[in-house]
Amino acid sequence: MRASVLRNGHMVYRDDVDEPVPGPGQVLVGVRACGICGSDLHFAKHGHEMLALGGQMSGMPSTGAASLDLRRDVFMGHEFSAEVLDAGPGTDAPPRGTLVTSIPALLSPNGVDPIVYSNTVIGGYAERMLLSAPLLLKVPNGLDPDHAALTEPMAVGLHAVNKSTIQRDETALVLGCGPIGIAIIAALANRGVETIVAADYSPKRRQLAHSMGAHQTIDPAVSSPFESATPAVIFEAVGVPGIIDDVMRRAPTGSRIVVAGVCMPPDTLHPFFGIAKEISIQFVLGYYPAEFAESLRAIADGEIDVAPLVTGTIGLDGLDAAFNELADPGEHCKILVAPRLAVRSSG
Amino acid sequence: MRASVLRNGHMVYRDDVDEPVPGPGQVLVGVRACGICGSDLHFAKHGHEMLALGGQMSGMPSTGAASLDLRRDVFMGHEFSAEVLDAGPGTDAPPRGTLVTSIPALLSPNGVDPIVYSNTVIGGYAERMLLSAPLLLKVPNGLDPDHAALTEPMAVGLHAVNKSTIQRDETALVLGCGPIGIAIIAALANRGVETIVAADYSPKRRQLAHSMGAHQTIDPAVSSPFESATPAVIFEAVGVPGIIDDVMRRAPTGSRIVVAGVCMPPDTLHPFFGIAKEISIQFVLGYYPAEFAESLRAIADGEIDVAPLVTGTIGLDGLDAAFNELADPGEHCKILVAPRLAVRSSG
Repeated sequence: MRASVLRNGHMVYRDDVDEPVPGPGQVLVGVRACGICGSDLHFAKHGHEMLALGGQMSGMPSTGAASLDLRRDVFMGHEFSAEVLDAGPGTDAPPRGTLVTSIPALLSPNGVDPIVYSNTVIGGYAERMLLSAPLLLKVPNGLDPDHAALTEPMAVGLHAVNKSTIQRDETALVLGCGPIGIAIIAALANRGVETIVAADYSPKRRQLAHSMGAHQTIDPAVSSPFESATPAVIFEAVGVPGIIDDVMRRAPTGSRIVVAGVCMPPDTLHPFFGIAKEISIQFVLGYYPAEFAESLRAIADGEIDVAPLVTGTIGLDGLDAAFNELADPGEHCKILVAPRLAVRSSG
Repeated sequence: MRASVLRNGHMVYRDDVDEPVPGPGQVLVGVRACGICGSDLHFAKHGHEMLALGGQMSGMPSTGAASLDLRRDVFMGHEFSAEVLDAGPGTDAPPRGTLVTSIPALLSPNGVDPIVYSNTVIGGYAERMLLSAPLLLKVPNGLDPDHAALTEPMAVGLHAVNKSTIQRDETALVLGCGPIGIAIIAALANRGVETIVAADYSPKRRQLAHSMGAHQTIDPAVSSPFESATPAVIFEAVGVPGIIDDVMRRAPTGSRIVVAGVCMPPDTLHPFFGIAKEISIQFVLGYYPAEFAESLRAIADGEIDVAPLVTGTIGLDGLDAAFNELADPGEHCKILVAPRLAVRSSG
């Protein structure tokens, strides 16, 4: 079947990938849409460092990432909606044709395999993939499959907001209005936070932030977000070296910083800024399954309109070009991969 | 009168300091004991950098530190007990001879002056100083003035523990058993935290940690504290560059780091460690007035025995030597300055 895989830092189109075969408890699905995540771009560029850093850490359960071999093709794509096609032996699955989504994890006799980066577990950048019957969520209310695929990134925003324990009358400042920043803004607005300030250099992204619920948008090239607002919670969704220190230097006394941006290289900061102002920093990653389900419900019930986030749709052969386009933050928010789209050129 | 002041990075004994005169609402007190704080050592060594870094920060109320002139003598000493001698005009003060303590702040018509580092506001490294009548706390239960002077550092530990929101059944790991680490251990034990693990290279400090309530002590030169314990909360009370990153690398998923150690230079860390394990970092400084009062109560009621912390008592002319001695973490915990002690040599 057709898929796009990471090979030597680039996304390569293939039409010769083996068909996945569902085992007990597993379901074969046809991918309807899969969003491109910034973390995929990061991994394509910095996969070696990520694996090396992961190997240095202790204190966390093994995720199987250690067994990933970057010399072999890597399957990716973890923001998907899909249609049920078939089920493994003795598996209680929804009827064929049911539109579903799932947290990106595959249960197997060996344990839980994340559907994120893998040499063996196929992700959403493919015609078909395997999901786990117990983890399936039916997409309700006739929701567009393209919008159902946004469940995952919106859950990341909801999780960041939940971890911040922000109250409605506390001012939120969101730095960076890429997909993560936008998901945070949507979750803040849906929670009823009364003052949401968003900052980004891109006019298009500021417009999107406004559409998704930001009450005030700021161009950091023109004025400091910290002059316009006195935030109780600062969501850092930029993820470049130096930004945590800059936020600590300028944040109000007692404020909470939620780091949702992914910065891979080592970073320098002044603990003194944090100490002098009793700042807290909460690093966040992912979401809980209940937050994923809540995210789908909020989208399907029309509480969060994700349509403005989708700025492009491509076929499986368009991933490498899309990864390049997404490097320019001004143009795009979320690009969806739709395997149904015709292939324009052989990979 | 006699005092010891910071001049060109050293503590200098003087016997020609002008007598302080209490204004309205102020009380003249005779210092009975004043503890030497690690932050005073830091300030003596890194005062210029501290003031420069403070000047770079925004987002906090001005503390008057900006007006400090390091070319002039600096009064210090903020961990004191004292005896009431006199009161300013129309001031409602306790009777002469009453033993008191206070948060280190002096109210004046100009506002609140911290009694920490100042060219004009005399601290506890002096025979006499001014305090504010509304802020005075009477030392109850006939508590030893030496022990009452420990109220302030013990409040720092209580505050760090309160900010951590640790529950009794959560494991605490305390890294560094200097005065701050010891105060944290005492507050954890007094709260009833059931598993307190403490790590320090110094056998004397480990012994002290054990006396103050640590259930397990670890020599990091022999084994990693993270191999012996799976802490929910890690109290970093070392304050050297690199330690935050090392803790983040080894801390369990979802753990909370409380940074109570003061690291002045810029520090390098990997945000990735924090992100991958959803770690939170709470920087702490000082305490609330209610915590200060609670700390005095716990000491006076015998809940916390501070006697083992006092490892030396010196006169006003011994400060420079004491600052040097305290650089060796193995020997001392808290050195008290007792102005009553005879002067052995003129400064």
